[in-house]
Amino acid sequence: MAANISRAAHGSLLDDSFGDDLVSDWYIYETAEPAAPQDDMFPSTVPDCDPTVSPKLYHTCMAPISLAVLLGLSLLVKRRRLHRDCWNGIPGLLSPANFLEEEGNRGLMAAVFGILFSSLCVLVLDADPLPLISHSSQHSREYWKILALLYYPAFYYPLAACATVGHRASYLLGCLLSWCHCVVHVWQKVDCPQSPKIYRYYSTLSYVPIILCLMVLSLWYPALLIRSFTGKEETSNKEVTGRGYYKKYLKAVLSRRLQKGSTPKLEESFLSRLRAYLCSYIYAPEEGFQLPLKLVLSMTTSVIAVYQVALLLLVAFVPTIQIVRAGMTKDVVVLLVQFGLVPSENPGMPGDMEKELSTVKHYLWSLEVCYVCSLVLCCLLTLAMLLRTLVMHRSNLKVLYQGAVLDVFYKAHILRPSRQAVVCWMSFASFQTAFACLGLLIQQVIFFICFAAFTFLVIIPLQSGTSSYLFKIVQNMWPFWLTLVVAVIVQNVTAHYQFLEQHPLRKELTNRRALYIVTYLLFPINVLVGVLAGVWRMVISALYNTIHFCQLDISLLNRGVETFDPGYHAYCHYLKTEVSQSHPLMRAFCLLLLQPTKPQGPPEPRMGDLEEGLQLMHTKKAPSGGDRLKRSRARWWLAYTLLNNPSLMACRKTALCDPTANGAQLSPPKP
Amino acid sequence: MAANISRAAHGSLLDDSFGDDLVSDWYIYETAEPAAPQDDMFPSTVPDCDPTVSPKLYHTCMAPISLAVLLGLSLLVKRRRLHRDCWNGIPGLLSPANFLEEEGNRGLMAAVFGILFSSLCVLVLDADPLPLISHSSQHSREYWKILALLYYPAFYYPLAACATVGHRASYLLGCLLSWCHCVVHVWQKVDCPQSPKIYRYYSTLSYVPIILCLMVLSLWYPALLIRSFTGKEETSNKEVTGRGYYKKYLKAVLSRRLQKGSTPKLEESFLSRLRAYLCSYIYAPEEGFQLPLKLVLSMTTSVIAVYQVALLLLVAFVPTIQIVRAGMTKDVVVLLVQFGLVPSENPGMPGDMEKELSTVKHYLWSLEVCYVCSLVLCCLLTLAMLLRTLVMHRSNLKVLYQGAVLDVFYKAHILRPSRQAVVCWMSFASFQTAFACLGLLIQQVIFFICFAAFTFLVIIPLQSGTSSYLFKIVQNMWPFWLTLVVAVIVQNVTAHYQFLEQHPLRKELTNRRALYIVTYLLFPINVLVGVLAGVWRMVISALYNTIHFCQLDISLLNRGVETFDPGYHAYCHYLKTEVSQSHPLMRAFCLLLLQPTKPQGPPEPRMGDLEEGLQLMHTKKAPSGGDRLKRSRARWWLAYTLLNNPSLMACRKTALCDPTANGAQLSPPKP
Repeated sequence: MAANISRAAHGSLLDDSFGDDLVSDWYIYETAEPAAPQDDMFPSTVPDCDPTVSPKLYHTCMAPISLAVLLGLSLLVKRRRLHRDCWNGIPGLLSPANFLEEEGNRGLMAAVFGILFSSLCVLVLDADPLPLISHSSQHSREYWKILALLYYPAFYYPLAACATVGHRASYLLGCLLSWCHCVVHVWQKVDCPQSPKIYRYYSTLSYVPIILCLMVLSLWYPALLIRSFTGKEETSNKEVTGRGYYKKYLKAVLSRRLQKGSTPKLEESFLSRLRAYLCSYIYAPEEGFQLPLKLVLSMTTSVIAVYQVALLLLVAFVPTIQIVRAGMTKDVVVLLVQFGLVPSENPGMPGDMEKELSTVKHYLWSLEVCYVCSLVLCCLLTLAMLLRTLVMHRSNLKVLYQGAVLDVFYKAHILRPSRQAVVCWMSFASFQTAFACLGLLIQQVIFFICFAAFTFLVIIPLQSGTSSYLFKIVQNMWPFWLTLVVAVIVQNVTAHYQFLEQHPLRKELTNRRALYIVTYLLFPINVLVGVLAGVWRMVISALYNTIHFCQLDISLLNRGVETFDPGYHAYCHYLKTEVSQSHPLMRAFCLLLLQPTKPQGPPEPRMGDLEEGLQLMHTKKAPSGGDRLKRSRARWWLAYTLLNNPSLMACRKTALCDPTANGAQLSPPKP
Repeated sequence: MAANISRAAHGSLLDDSFGDDLVSDWYIYETAEPAAPQDDMFPSTVPDCDPTVSPKLYHTCMAPISLAVLLGLSLLVKRRRLHRDCWNGIPGLLSPANFLEEEGNRGLMAAVFGILFSSLCVLVLDADPLPLISHSSQHSREYWKILALLYYPAFYYPLAACATVGHRASYLLGCLLSWCHCVVHVWQKVDCPQSPKIYRYYSTLSYVPIILCLMVLSLWYPALLIRSFTGKEETSNKEVTGRGYYKKYLKAVLSRRLQKGSTPKLEESFLSRLRAYLCSYIYAPEEGFQLPLKLVLSMTTSVIAVYQVALLLLVAFVPTIQIVRAGMTKDVVVLLVQFGLVPSENPGMPGDMEKELSTVKHYLWSLEVCYVCSLVLCCLLTLAMLLRTLVMHRSNLKVLYQGAVLDVFYKAHILRPSRQAVVCWMSFASFQTAFACLGLLIQQVIFFICFAAFTFLVIIPLQSGTSSYLFKIVQNMWPFWLTLVVAVIVQNVTAHYQFLEQHPLRKELTNRRALYIVTYLLFPINVLVGVLAGVWRMVISALYNTIHFCQLDISLLNRGVETFDPGYHAYCHYLKTEVSQSHPLMRAFCLLLLQPTKPQGPPEPRMGDLEEGLQLMHTKKAPSGGDRLKRSRARWWLAYTLLNNPSLMACRKTALCDPTANGAQLSPPKP
C-alpha cells in the first residue's frame, strides 16, 4: 500500500501540494497500471531531458577515437622497438597497467578503475546498457548488458594505456582523451541534472565518481606531459620505476631492525594497549613500505562501491517514505488503527483522528531517522573495516616477506603461483569491491532492523509514557534475571575463595566435595545461564560476521575450515602470487647491484617492459668485448634480467642443470 | 488469522466434525476472549484430570522422605568415619557425584541428570512450577519458579548420593527411593494421559525421559545391591574406582605406540580419506579410553534436550496447522485469493471456489510436510554434531594428555585451574545442554524457511505446470549466468595454459602482459562473480554456524577472536580443568605404584573419598614402626595420597621448599 502511494506521488517529490487528491489518484493508478515500470511512469513531472551531446553520439564518436588512439600507440611502440612476438614481445597490445611492478602512476590507475566500476554500477541499473544501441527491447537488453560488461573496459582502455607507454606523444593523447571525456560528462550533467530514474538527482549523483576520476586523469596527464618536457633526468629516473621505493624499503628494513634491537618491549599498561588496539584500525602510511598496486585499486573501487550502494539505498527509501508521510490521510490512519498498528484512545470512533494522524507521521519520521542513522553507521563501519583491512594487508605482506608463513596462514603454504593463485590474483580487486557492496547491504538490513526495534520498543514508549511489551517483560522477569546474575556471581566468588588455593604459585583445586555439590545444585540455573550465553553466541557471531563481511583477510568460518570461505580463499591465493612475484627486498637488492652499470648502461632501462632484460641479453651479448669488462657486464645484465624477471629467480638452478628448458635463454645459445 | 482459527478449534483436535460452525465460532471467540490464555480455553474437550496421587501429595510426601534419607546417609557415613571437618572432611554433606574421579556408576549419574533436566523443561512451561504450592498467582509464580530451580536438584539429591556412599544400606535406600519415584510417575501418567496444555498428549510425552531415567535407576540400584551381596572381592575391587580403566588406558597407550611405530602412514587414496572423514563423525568407543563423567552427563542431557525441544516444536505447530487445514472454508479462500496468495482462474467470481479450496489445503499440507521434514533433518543434524563433538572431545583430550597444547588451542595456554576455569568447568554440562536446545531451534527456523521456499518456488510450480517467479528469473537471466561461468572457465584455462609455465618444477608466471590485459578487461565481470561469491560466503557462514551451533569445541568466530565466543571459551577452560585434574596416565602410574601395598594396605582404599589419603597419613603415621618398613610404607602412603589428591602433585617441590604452606601436611608435623 505504501509502495503504491509512493509510486503515485513519486513525481511530485519536494512539492508541498499534497493532499486528498493524491489518495484519489492512488486508486486510479493502481487499477490502470498495476505493473507499469517505475521509470516511465511520471514523464510529466520530471521531463525527459535530451542532452546536447547524447550518450549515443558521445560513444559513437569516442569509441572509434579510442580505438584509433590504441592502434596509434601500438604503432608508436612498434616503431621504437623491433617486433618480436605479438603476445610476448614488447609491442603488440599495450598493457593497461603493470600490476605486479612498482609503477609511479598509482593514482592514475586507481582513477581508471574507479571510472570502470562506476560505469558498471550505472549500466547494471540502466535501461540502455550499451549506449551505442538506444531503445533496446526488454529481451535483447540482457545481451547488450553482457556486451557492455566488455565494452566499457575496452572503451576506457586508452586512458590507462597512455600512461604505461611512457612516451611524450602518449601523454599528449592521454591529455586530450581525458579532457574530452571529462568535458562531455560534465556537459551532459549540466544539461540534464534531473532524470526520472529512481530519484530525480540519482543519475547525476551516481555520475559524480566518474567525473571526479576523469578530473584526476585530466590533471594527471598534463602533469606527466609537463614533467616529460621539463626534467629529462628526473623523468628517466622516475621511469626506472620503483627504484626509489625499493631503496627506501631496504633502508627502512635495515634501520627498523636496529631500532627494534635497541628498544626491547616493556610491560605495557592497559591504556597503551588500548591505544595500540585503536591504532591498529587506522592505516597510517609507513615510510619505506607501500601497498601493492592491486590493493590500492581494490580500496579505491571499494570506497566508490560504498558510495554507490549508500546512494542507492538512500534515494530508494528516503524520498519514498517522505512522500508516504506527506500523503498520509485520516482514511489510512483509520485502517492502521483497526489493524492495531497505531494506539488510539477511541478506536470505535473513526471520525476525529487528528492525534492518531500526527502519531503515524511521527512513527514514519522515526523510521526515516532510523534508516538514515543506520546507513551512516554502516558506511562508517565499512570504511573503518576497509581501513583496518589495509593495516592487515600491510602486516601480512611484511610477515610474508620475512618468510613467516605460519604467522599469516593457519597451515603451511608454499608461496608459489598456481592456477588457483593466478585466478584469485586476477579477481582479487573485483572480489574486494563486490564484498564491500554486499557487506554494506547486509549491514544496512541488520542495523536498520535493530535501530527500528530499539526505537519502537524503547524510545517511543519512553516518549509517550506508555509501557511497551518489552518493558512489561523486563518488569515481570526481574527476579529471574537477578537470580541468574546472583548465581553467576556466587559461582565466581566461591570458585575464587573456596575452590582454589589462595597461594599465587599453587592455583590448585581444593574443597572438591563442596565444588561437586555446588555444581550439582546449580545445574538447572546454569542451563538458563547457558541459554543466555547461547543467545549471546548467536548475536556476537552474527554481528561479527556482518561487520567483517567486507574484510577479505578474515575468514568467517572456523579455524579448521577457513579456506572454504571464498573471500578468504581468494585473499590467501592473492597473497601467494603477490609475495612470490614482487618481493621488494629482492628487487632493491637487484637495483643496488645494477646501479654501478648506469653510466655505461643501455640507453634507458625501462622496467615497465617486462622481458626487456632478457631481450637485451640476446641482442647485446655478441658485440661486448674485453674479458674482464665482458664478464662484469654479463653479470650486471644477468642481475638486471633477474630484476625484471623475478620469475626466473626460482628456477635458476634448474635452468643451469637443464639447458633445454626455458633457462636456456639465459646461457648463450648452443651451436 | 490462522492463529485464531487454531485457537478456536484447538480442543476439537482429531475430531472429524469440522465445518462451517467452526468459522462462525471463530468470530465469537475473537471478540469474547481476545487474550485468554491458551491453557484453560477448552476445558470441556480435554477434561481436567486429577490423578489419584496428585503432584502436591507426591512432593509433600517424598520431599521429607528424601531429606530423611539424606540425613540418614550422612549419619551412616559419620558413624563409619570420624568427623573432622564438615566442609573438607569425609562425612558432612554427601557428594552427589565425584565428577573429576573415575566412577563406576556413570549411567546412574547420567540418569539423575536426565531427570533433573527434564524436570527443568517441565517446570519452565508449567503453571504451577513448585508442586508444593498449587494454584499460584501470576505474580508469585515467578518467585516459585526460581525456588523450583533449586528445589528439584535438592529433591533428587538422594538418588545420586545413595550411589556415592557405596554402602549396602545406601543401595537399599536408593532402590526404594527410585522405585517410589518411578511408580508414582508411571501411575500419574496412566491415570491422566491427557492434559489441556499445548497438546493433549504433550505432558505425557514430555515425562517420558523422566520415567525412562527413573527406570534405569530402579534397575541400577538393585543391581548394585545384589553385587554388593554376591561378590565381596569384586565389589571392593570395583570400589577402588577407575583402577581398571587407568590400567587399560596405560596398556592402550603403550601398545598403541608400538602399533603406530610399525605401520607408517602411506599415501592415502581419495576413498579412504573420505571414509576416514565420515568416520570422524561417528564416535566408536576406543579401548583404553573413556570420556570424563562430565562429558557423559552433558551428552545425556543434550540428547534429552533435543527430544524435548523437538517435541515442543512438533506439538506446537503440527496439530495447529492440521486444524487450520481442516477448518479452511471458501470464505477464507476468497480472502486469500483477493490478497493474491493463491492463484485463481476466475478471481472476479468468488462463488465457485472448489478448486482454490483444494489448492489452499494442498499448500497447507505442503507446509506441514516441510515443517516435519526440516524438524527431522534438524534432529538428525544435531545428533550427528553431538556425536562429532564426542569424537572431538576425545581427540582433544588425548592430545592435551600428551601435552600438545598448540594442537588444540590457537594460543599457548597453561593447563592449570583458575577462577574462570573452575566456573566454566562447573557450568560446562549446562552450557552444552542449553546450546543443543538453542541450536535445534535456530536450525528449525532456518531449515523450515529454506524447505518452504524450495517447495513453493520450485516443487509446487513444477507440479502445477505454472512458471514461478524464480523460473522466470532463471529463464530471463541465463545468458548472464552463462557469461559468468564462461568468464570463470576462461580465466582458469588461460591461467593454466597461458600464464603458468607448464614445467612441473617451475610453476612460474609467464606472459605477464596478457595476464594484465585479461585482468583489466574482466574486471567488471569479476565484480559480478564476486557478488555471487559474496552471497555464497554469507550462505556458507550462516549455514556452518547454524549447523555447528551446538558444538562447543568449535568457535563460531574468527581465529584471532575465537575466545569471545562464550561456548568455546567455556570449552577451553573446561578442558584446562579436566586435563590438569584427572590425567589418567598419572593416575595409572600411581595405581601401579600402589598395587604391592594392597595385601598389607588399609582396610578398604576408597577413591571416592577425596582427601582420605591425606587423613590416613595423619592418623596412621604415628603407630608405624621399623625403619625400612616405615619408609616403604610412608612411600606407599605418599603415592596413595598423591593418587587421591592429584592437586598436590603440582606443588610438591614447592611444598618441600616451603613447609609452612599446605605441603606441611605431607611431611611430619614440626615440633
